[in-house]
Amino acid sequence: MLHPTSIISSKAKIGHNVKIGPYTIVHDNVIIGDNTTIDSHCEIGYPSPLADGSPLIIGHSSLIRSHSVFYEGSTFGERLTTGHRVTVREKTHAGKSFQIGTLGDIQGTCIIGDYVRLQSNIFIGQHAKLGDYIWIFPHVVLTNDPHPPSEIRMGVSIEDFAVIATMSTILPGVRIKKGALVAAHSCVRSDVEEDTVVAGSPAKFIFETSKLKLKDGSGDSAYPWRKHFHRGYPEEVVLEWLKEF
Amino acid sequence: MLHPTSIISSKAKIGHNVKIGPYTIVHDNVIIGDNTTIDSHCEIGYPSPLADGSPLIIGHSSLIRSHSVFYEGSTFGERLTTGHRVTVREKTHAGKSFQIGTLGDIQGTCIIGDYVRLQSNIFIGQHAKLGDYIWIFPHVVLTNDPHPPSEIRMGVSIEDFAVIATMSTILPGVRIKKGALVAAHSCVRSDVEEDTVVAGSPAKFIFETSKLKLKDGSGDSAYPWRKHFHRGYPEEVVLEWLKEF
Amino acid sequence: MLHPTSIISSKAKIGHNVKIGPYTIVHDNVIIGDNTTIDSHCEIGYPSPLADGSPLIIGHSSLIRSHSVFYEGSTFGERLTTGHRVTVREKTHAGKSFQIGTLGDIQGTCIIGDYVRLQSNIFIGQHAKLGDYIWIFPHVVLTNDPHPPSEIRMGVSIEDFAVIATMSTILPGVRIKKGALVAAHSCVRSDVEEDTVVAGSPAKFIFETSKLKLKDGSGDSAYPWRKHFHRGYPEEVVLEWLKEF
Repeated sequence: MLHPTSIISSKAKIGHNVKIGPYTIVHDNVIIGDNTTIDSHCEIGYPSPLADGSPLIIGHSSLIRSHSVFYEGSTFGERLTTGHRVTVREKTHAGKSFQIGTLGDIQGTCIIGDYVRLQSNIFIGQHAKLGDYIWIFPHVVLTNDPHPPSEIRMGVSIEDFAVIATMSTILPGVRIKKGALVAAHSCVRSDVEEDTVVAGSPAKFIFETSKLKLKDGSGDSAYPWRKHFHRGYPEEVVLEWLKEF
Repeated sequence: MLHPTSIISSKAKIGHNVKIGPYTIVHDNVIIGDNTTIDSHCEIGYPSPLADGSPLIIGHSSLIRSHSVFYEGSTFGERLTTGHRVTVREKTHAGKSFQIGTLGDIQGTCIIGDYVRLQSNIFIGQHAKLGDYIWIFPHVVLTNDPHPPSEIRMGVSIEDFAVIATMSTILPGVRIKKGALVAAHSCVRSDVEEDTVVAGSPAKFIFETSKLKLKDGSGDSAYPWRKHFHRGYPEEVVLEWLKEF
Repeated sequence: MLHPTSIISSKAKIGHNVKIGPYTIVHDNVIIGDNTTIDSHCEIGYPSPLADGSPLIIGHSSLIRSHSVFYEGSTFGERLTTGHRVTVREKTHAGKSFQIGTLGDIQGTCIIGDYVRLQSNIFIGQHAKLGDYIWIFPHVVLTNDPHPPSEIRMGVSIEDFAVIATMSTILPGVRIKKGALVAAHSCVRSDVEEDTVVAGSPAKFIFETSKLKLKDGSGDSAYPWRKHFHRGYPEEVVLEWLKEF
């Protein structure tokens, strides 16, 4: 299960039925949960003084794909799933069933809830706070410095069920409220209200999310998406969602 | 030719004069054409149930640069050339002389013609259809979900000789017609007509491509680019193009 | 210091106290300065005919993080520091204390001054010229072809102390003058004057940089940033800056 070419510290705590692929390195200060798979060419628990000695913890039943790098000092709940070449730095704490797409770059010191889905090539600046059931699409950037370069950090906060479409930038300190939708290629400078759509650069209010119709001929609203999109969520979560409607 | 540290399945079908670099992994369900080079730290034929058992086929005389990942179930014609850290998922089918720049991320289930050139860090969503002789420049995203997240997929289609300049986003279902030019940093929501330039967010018609002059003092038009730009194309292709002018 | 799984050419010139990590490859035509660390899974001195035989030179006290690729024929002053998965191609010449963030892609034939800071996932097209003390933030693209694809190359030039905020595109031949600030998500088509802010697509003059106040309650200006931001610069450099104010 541990490939003979993997280099695994004897100090690392490796759970039962863990698979570690060829040419992957696991450093000292790492705890990996049961039934987790780490593919080839990864570097897990990269040592950093910024971790203040705290370990990297990967929850059980996770899958980390090839060429990924995880630093010491971050923690992930069960069923973390990544694409290839993901980087996560120190002191980020994510809940369960977190997905990070290929090339994702999480700069550390972030708080991330449960069932958050990041697609490919997303940059999450330090001090971001993400709730539960969030979707972020390719090439989105969450910033934190209001007048770079400076020592001031104002993390972005994103609330439950919010969606940020591809190639958008969220400026420092902005709050994207519950169920909001940021349209593709937007630059968001100010807070986005619950269940509203913003678009443009700078992003402006367009309409309520409920105005967007599903392109399946049903005439139903596309939002809140949790009414119709359930792939990948456990039945008990979906049943809870559906009580609302 | 096969580096001693490469890990190559005995089930993989490797052509004549193939070179495989250090620390590269070749899985079972792979067919590699003659005279192909695969550099270091790659993972070739990554197993996936979504491939339905179909093999990864790499045409002859190809070059895959380091740290790239190709899944089972995609096929490439002769002379595929990649930059570093490219990812291609399942069931994408590309013609000959396909180039994918560094960090390219092709999500699978795409159809790609001959002599297509993708530069660095391009994201191609599922169900994209690309014709022949297309150019796409760095950090472009082709999307497919009209109201994410949902189960609806509307792939982008791009026709022969079209050009998409850097940092543009093409929204779901959009068709970029033959010879069109999408200017840099545009967000394209609706179809783009043949031999026209669009720009902005949302992208709007600017003028015919023939209005753009070459910045070489000649006074000639910069488009159709196939009139003056021939580097990397075989003579018979160029002669065919020039018959038109 | 040289990991037993690293593959190091006997022709490479390796300084004193150099550390080379697991699964890293160092090719023939490479000169590495004293006290430099190269992490795991890198490829250093990738051979290329475009280098015309000139070596890759890495200055002393540098740190190259994992999965990075450096081609033959580029040179770096002392204290180069990179993130993970950086690519630098041929014939780029950078001064001292150059920082390149994770996923950075420098296409070669660039001139880069001292103390330049590139954050994550920046694309630098060929023929760019960067002065000293420049900051570029994530997902910025510097282009060079005014009517792609063509054989004309018009590199971008960026002067000392200029700042380009996240997700901006700089079009071919543009000059960003000393101390200017390009706001996030801008597309810059024309030159930017000294100590001014531009924003939008196309980017337009907004006001003088001195109008931007620090969000620390002090009432001070945020720019010129060198008045208040000194982290990572040597004392003698900072003292020189402060003489101006």
